[in-house]
Amino acid sequence: MGANAVLLLSCPDQPGVVAAVAELVFRHGGNIVDTEQHTDREDGVFFQRVEWELDGFALAREEILPACAPLLARFDAQAEVSFTDVRPRVAILASRQPHCLHDLLTRWRTDELPIDVPVVVSNHEDHRAIAEFSGTEYVHLPVTPATKPAQEERLVEVLQERNVELVVLARYMQILGPRVVGAFPNRIINIHHSFLPAFAGARPYHQAHERGVKVIGVTAHYVTEALDEGPIVDQDVVRVSHRDDVAGLVRKGRDLETIVLARAVRAHIEHRVLVHGHRTVVFG
Amino acid sequence: MGANAVLLLSCPDQPGVVAAVAELVFRHGGNIVDTEQHTDREDGVFFQRVEWELDGFALAREEILPACAPLLARFDAQAEVSFTDVRPRVAILASRQPHCLHDLLTRWRTDELPIDVPVVVSNHEDHRAIAEFSGTEYVHLPVTPATKPAQEERLVEVLQERNVELVVLARYMQILGPRVVGAFPNRIINIHHSFLPAFAGARPYHQAHERGVKVIGVTAHYVTEALDEGPIVDQDVVRVSHRDDVAGLVRKGRDLETIVLARAVRAHIEHRVLVHGHRTVVFG
Amino acid sequence: MGANAVLLLSCPDQPGVVAAVAELVFRHGGNIVDTEQHTDREDGVFFQRVEWELDGFALAREEILPACAPLLARFDAQAEVSFTDVRPRVAILASRQPHCLHDLLTRWRTDELPIDVPVVVSNHEDHRAIAEFSGTEYVHLPVTPATKPAQEERLVEVLQERNVELVVLARYMQILGPRVVGAFPNRIINIHHSFLPAFAGARPYHQAHERGVKVIGVTAHYVTEALDEGPIVDQDVVRVSHRDDVAGLVRKGRDLETIVLARAVRAHIEHRVLVHGHRTVVFG
Amino acid sequence: MGANAVLLLSCPDQPGVVAAVAELVFRHGGNIVDTEQHTDREDGVFFQRVEWELDGFALAREEILPACAPLLARFDAQAEVSFTDVRPRVAILASRQPHCLHDLLTRWRTDELPIDVPVVVSNHEDHRAIAEFSGTEYVHLPVTPATKPAQEERLVEVLQERNVELVVLARYMQILGPRVVGAFPNRIINIHHSFLPAFAGARPYHQAHERGVKVIGVTAHYVTEALDEGPIVDQDVVRVSHRDDVAGLVRKGRDLETIVLARAVRAHIEHRVLVHGHRTVVFG
Repeated sequence: MGANAVLLLSCPDQPGVVAAVAELVFRHGGNIVDTEQHTDREDGVFFQRVEWELDGFALAREEILPACAPLLARFDAQAEVSFTDVRPRVAILASRQPHCLHDLLTRWRTDELPIDVPVVVSNHEDHRAIAEFSGTEYVHLPVTPATKPAQEERLVEVLQERNVELVVLARYMQILGPRVVGAFPNRIINIHHSFLPAFAGARPYHQAHERGVKVIGVTAHYVTEALDEGPIVDQDVVRVSHRDDVAGLVRKGRDLETIVLARAVRAHIEHRVLVHGHRTVVFG
Repeated sequence: MGANAVLLLSCPDQPGVVAAVAELVFRHGGNIVDTEQHTDREDGVFFQRVEWELDGFALAREEILPACAPLLARFDAQAEVSFTDVRPRVAILASRQPHCLHDLLTRWRTDELPIDVPVVVSNHEDHRAIAEFSGTEYVHLPVTPATKPAQEERLVEVLQERNVELVVLARYMQILGPRVVGAFPNRIINIHHSFLPAFAGARPYHQAHERGVKVIGVTAHYVTEALDEGPIVDQDVVRVSHRDDVAGLVRKGRDLETIVLARAVRAHIEHRVLVHGHRTVVFG
Repeated sequence: MGANAVLLLSCPDQPGVVAAVAELVFRHGGNIVDTEQHTDREDGVFFQRVEWELDGFALAREEILPACAPLLARFDAQAEVSFTDVRPRVAILASRQPHCLHDLLTRWRTDELPIDVPVVVSNHEDHRAIAEFSGTEYVHLPVTPATKPAQEERLVEVLQERNVELVVLARYMQILGPRVVGAFPNRIINIHHSFLPAFAGARPYHQAHERGVKVIGVTAHYVTEALDEGPIVDQDVVRVSHRDDVAGLVRKGRDLETIVLARAVRAHIEHRVLVHGHRTVVFG
Repeated sequence: MGANAVLLLSCPDQPGVVAAVAELVFRHGGNIVDTEQHTDREDGVFFQRVEWELDGFALAREEILPACAPLLARFDAQAEVSFTDVRPRVAILASRQPHCLHDLLTRWRTDELPIDVPVVVSNHEDHRAIAEFSGTEYVHLPVTPATKPAQEERLVEVLQERNVELVVLARYMQILGPRVVGAFPNRIINIHHSFLPAFAGARPYHQAHERGVKVIGVTAHYVTEALDEGPIVDQDVVRVSHRDDVAGLVRKGRDLETIVLARAVRAHIEHRVLVHGHRTVVFG
């Protein structure tokens, strides 16, 4: 299979967008292989994802967005174009807990996630061996209250020097300040180990145990400056019972965290996520 | 909200279909509110569902399909057009077990399923009271090996006289012969109490218990002449354990049967199901 | 199958309880068919459920608890004894929404839930027909801020006159005051249409839509004086997406509400629930 | 927490077993922390798992089973005793697919599964690096039709020389002959990538796609001489749709395979599985 182009578009809801986009692709010889759309009726906003084959398409990659300009102007639309054969450069940040980090590295090594991982950053030394075995750089950035501003500055440098497009917080237990969040808007995915908005903040499994819930959950979301309130990309849950003490919840939650984080990363790198205010549209 | 039109279309896969359909709707002033498509790459077949508002649309309902004729001819496509404010006429067939029948009647009475139920047919007298309480006709058609051909003829008459468009087998335990199946192609939905193709045929919960499975399932499918082999519309499962004897499986399965059957009926009446050989495309 | 006795017991955790209970049952000729236990390590509390056959058991029903007295004293234990052939008397309270009420009435009519329903109470007239069709009494108790105290008094009378043991709030939209809650401690089950503690209070589906969650849930819990904070008996969830507006969440939630409420009622009437502070132990 | 002893027992169903076991543990000063039981009514067989603290228990580990002998004789029971602080020695067999192998190695390395992995065996060289990184031995045993009998003999030697107690087939694509199966009865766990008994044999995802199912599953089972018919330990499923081609099913199935296999291994090493004919009892 050859590569495809993906157009993500949003604009005020109005007739004619679907026809205009389809006509533009068709006029240049493109075969649409997938299209999804969504209209938020309350806010009157239209979202679309269109994917077509580059094989036989008349425009070069860099010509596509310019060719869309009249259409975008006509409908007052924002758009971005991506290509399915370009591997996104993803940095992984972790603290002590290994499961999400190891899982993402395995998915990368075994080519299950079509990404490049130029760097793993951690505030601990713990994961150097698995990172280097996996073939990526390991940067140890310890953080104390005193060094945090400087280390965040350093973190942004590390990420930008390596042309990182997506930052994945694989149970990274440091709260990121506005310097980092601002440098990667809607480009940082965190996994929170509760079913948000329940049990935001610290020690969610302890909170869940205390409340006596019968289901626990996890939430993958984009990081914004408001802690645990960013747009949710994916969530999932697992049943628990009175037999599960906190350690049992932690253990059951681990598998869920790895899977939901990996699903959210996949949705992002497949260009299926559009952020709309503090919500998301996740196609497909 | 006003009514919408729904176009279900299938044709050989080729460039231009999406653009042509969108252009046709737009040209007559229609605002597309939902479109989904699927391409079966192995068989080279394209499927699409397009829904647009009738408010402001320039064509009368009966003019729509004729207006599509050139497009259909150009792409060698089949299509049907439906309207979201037309309540499909649904007959329910049941035997002794009440749960699926009662559930569908409740959904109809409480307007959760936007259908009309002109008739309930059963080979037993058991459900006359609930049918009549719900405001529908109850037809008792007992079946013996000797009377089966005549009763199937009678069944087709009963259904056709009442202009039934969809027949729902709500745990109807009689195998329908070709006379009935042929009169309602891809218009009869059955709920089979196993995760097909596992445990086809009789007593699936007994079979499941015997095999010692840890999950049981149910399958809603269109009825074809080959028993339990029709195109699957929906399936779902529930966990079981060694603690569940056959009666336990039956009980756990009942909730699943009612829900999966109701979901399949909803998908059908919302014109979201396209049959492709012995498989289905179920949009949305 | 003959009837069984069920002993529910809790006491400070200590060695010897399991042996003493088993020995007591065995000494009087009882065959234990199920036993489950749980120890809350943090609080040092032991819980047990023991079920044995009455066939061949040497004690009459009313002699069982007295025969346990020495054991209970020795271990400082609380206990109650129930019998599996006694149908609990269950009252159902509903407001306008029909789905949970209709579902519970169907389960009763079709003998899927082995209960008696002596009365349905509602602050509206809406459900008289289905209640009377189902063979139960319908009591209309309209509530205004002015009449609420008197009507709650009347409600307790209605329930107590009919020897109701369990009160099920089937989407009953009135907050019950201390007079009612106090009359039925851990004997009132409510279904809340969110995954508590997320979205407590009013309009949880609106809250969930606003937050952009990808999973919605429901919670069956015992009613206490603190709204939405009673001990949780069961919870479950269903996936949603950006395609589901509030009406879509409401619809998807309905099936979940009926099923989780029915499951919680079943757990209660099978004597599988023990309340421990604001949590529950739900056996098997 | 100190170590516990676990007694797994089965015998003909009869009164008095629960009391006798509990009394035996109590008499020697043991505090029972968990007990579960199950009675198969059809076959009249009783199963029990009892776990108690060794702290303060009067018998040494090797004295426990002898002390049970009179009880076992009285009830015609089989039993085995295990200890929760003994790490089972687990061998992992893999072919080309890495996901289950990498996952189990990660769980071992991060101490999530309390096992020892003395050896990884494969008919390919592919996984030597990750095995050696993880700190285990890698044995490459290529298999051809001609060498199969000799290599199976060699495999048994490799496993027995390393005192392997459990063999895990982590997508090992060779069918094991009676020599291997006979050497490890109910000690070999395989993950089959379908919801057995549906789609036994080769290429189950292709079969599932062909049939058009809406849910796919995986099955962890003990290996017996009858292919894909061994006692099932665990199963689980994931929803699929017409959008998932075979490659999509394979990808969705991978996460399920790793999780269900890891769950089954955990149940086995926690001594929670009892085999009964071609079914299993899996406690808690």
